[in-house]
Amino acid sequence: MRYSNLELVDRVDAFPNAATHPIAFAERTADYARFTYLSHTIGYIIPLVRAALDDRALSGDWWELTPNTVSLKGDTVEERTANMAETTKRWREAKRFDILSGWRNEQYTVYAPQGKPCFHMERSATPLFGVLTYGSHMTVYVPASPTRPLRIWVPRRAAGKSTYPSMLDNTVAGGMGDGATPLATIIKEAGEEASLPAAYVAENVRAAGFVSYFYVRGAEAGGEAGLLQPEIEYVYDMAVGEPDAEGPVPVPCDGEVAEHMLLTVPEVREQLALGNFKPNCAAVMLDFFVRHGFLDAENEPDIVEIYTRLHRRLEFPTR
Amino acid sequence: MRYSNLELVDRVDAFPNAATHPIAFAERTADYARFTYLSHTIGYIIPLVRAALDDRALSGDWWELTPNTVSLKGDTVEERTANMAETTKRWREAKRFDILSGWRNEQYTVYAPQGKPCFHMERSATPLFGVLTYGSHMTVYVPASPTRPLRIWVPRRAAGKSTYPSMLDNTVAGGMGDGATPLATIIKEAGEEASLPAAYVAENVRAAGFVSYFYVRGAEAGGEAGLLQPEIEYVYDMAVGEPDAEGPVPVPCDGEVAEHMLLTVPEVREQLALGNFKPNCAAVMLDFFVRHGFLDAENEPDIVEIYTRLHRRLEFPTR
Repeated sequence: MRYSNLELVDRVDAFPNAATHPIAFAERTADYARFTYLSHTIGYIIPLVRAALDDRALSGDWWELTPNTVSLKGDTVEERTANMAETTKRWREAKRFDILSGWRNEQYTVYAPQGKPCFHMERSATPLFGVLTYGSHMTVYVPASPTRPLRIWVPRRAAGKSTYPSMLDNTVAGGMGDGATPLATIIKEAGEEASLPAAYVAENVRAAGFVSYFYVRGAEAGGEAGLLQPEIEYVYDMAVGEPDAEGPVPVPCDGEVAEHMLLTVPEVREQLALGNFKPNCAAVMLDFFVRHGFLDAENEPDIVEIYTRLHRRLEFPTR
Repeated sequence: MRYSNLELVDRVDAFPNAATHPIAFAERTADYARFTYLSHTIGYIIPLVRAALDDRALSGDWWELTPNTVSLKGDTVEERTANMAETTKRWREAKRFDILSGWRNEQYTVYAPQGKPCFHMERSATPLFGVLTYGSHMTVYVPASPTRPLRIWVPRRAAGKSTYPSMLDNTVAGGMGDGATPLATIIKEAGEEASLPAAYVAENVRAAGFVSYFYVRGAEAGGEAGLLQPEIEYVYDMAVGEPDAEGPVPVPCDGEVAEHMLLTVPEVREQLALGNFKPNCAAVMLDFFVRHGFLDAENEPDIVEIYTRLHRRLEFPTR
């Protein structure tokens, strides 16, 4: 199978949009509970997870449950965080969800309106609650010169990784934990994943917006299939020199990356079409191509749907 | 009054989004008719316009009217185009709508699903039907050098223009008529508005996506206030040299532009904050600032809402 650019978007933005597809949205969410804080929707709970919450012997009494809504008890960020932590700890100990076997010991923040923290929770448990998570992705590229076309540094994930093994990735990418900023995240990850010095990255990186989408996890993501993962990934570009001149060369250093390759845009597009990129990294590549003029209204008939879906306005409060 | 960046977005994207604000959307559209083609929504008809359509002596018998929907009779693009033309011609002759005093004699295309034309219609009448229209906007800028910061060529609209007189604009911008492409539109407008040679623009312009939003026209737009104007504006960047070196200088040539100024980013931001930019041109400037790293998650707390609303997924079929 070969994927069109729109089909690459379908892989990462797979949840129906209430504004453009109200019937599909209503059907899809008919048996979901809304995860609410005050009257705001902060996530969606699928029946598999709702069943665990209804099992009070397992999940404790930290939840307000109605037929269509779920909310976390607690009057403060600290209380809600503690109640969520106790629930996920019990689920992990009971081996209730496969996804928790990938426990990260990293805290992610879920937001209330006006960008205030609502609570913090274990990263690996976020897809169980369909809450919005954040990350940063950087594309390191060698700009076009009179003699050579633009090329992009593309890593291949290690074969031993539990998620998306051996797939192609963005040059640097990582999730944004509690207390980090998008820029601090990308600088830290650039050191860990590609051995790029923090001072060099801070000097040369350029913010370029974000992609946002509503991902539905498949088996290749690890854990239960069908879990919901709305995401905002802040995107950064960094132009560097030729590797045979003064340019830095990304070097794997934490065992997560097998190799870094320097690929032309046609080479990246071929790997995208073959489905070899991790789905959300494909989204970041498409966004790069639009911003840099490689994909436009003249050569991509689906550009409006592609680019609006990659900047999806999600229905949840954000940071 | 000073406008925040989010308030600048509010000025251009003023129609409630059904996905994120379902109650506001339902209230706003409660007395609107949907303009439909087969079962698809291709626009919204406000009561002011619906009243004219209900007046068959005025508007003829070219319309299928139900309490909540309006559709244009005709089995072919040509028939629907002719029926729309006859309706708008009668309204113009009867002076039924002020907005038609700005009659352009330019045809815009309204699309059916799969990017097929549904019909063509007079440009100035499109806001009466709330249909999606298209244009192209180009930001011509002098990139930063070791000694000088990035600067943007900003035109001031002529004082005598009927719409947005004396306001600031994008370097080049224009609506996309029937049969044109986004790139052809910007090349043509660059000659007409800024005296930039077509061959030079074709060589140096770079596509950079689009902005999309749902505008509600105020009095300053000309014609009736409250008319609906969802738009997709394809955006282009063109880097040029210093005007005191080899760089081209935009020169007004069609009387629409009073002058072109070369402004730094802080100067443009000040004019934005003062509300001196035409609303949709402010949107294009904000998009430029995000793509070029001047607005990011570290310095703009509202960046997620700003950038997703500027790439709004509209509920209408597109080209």
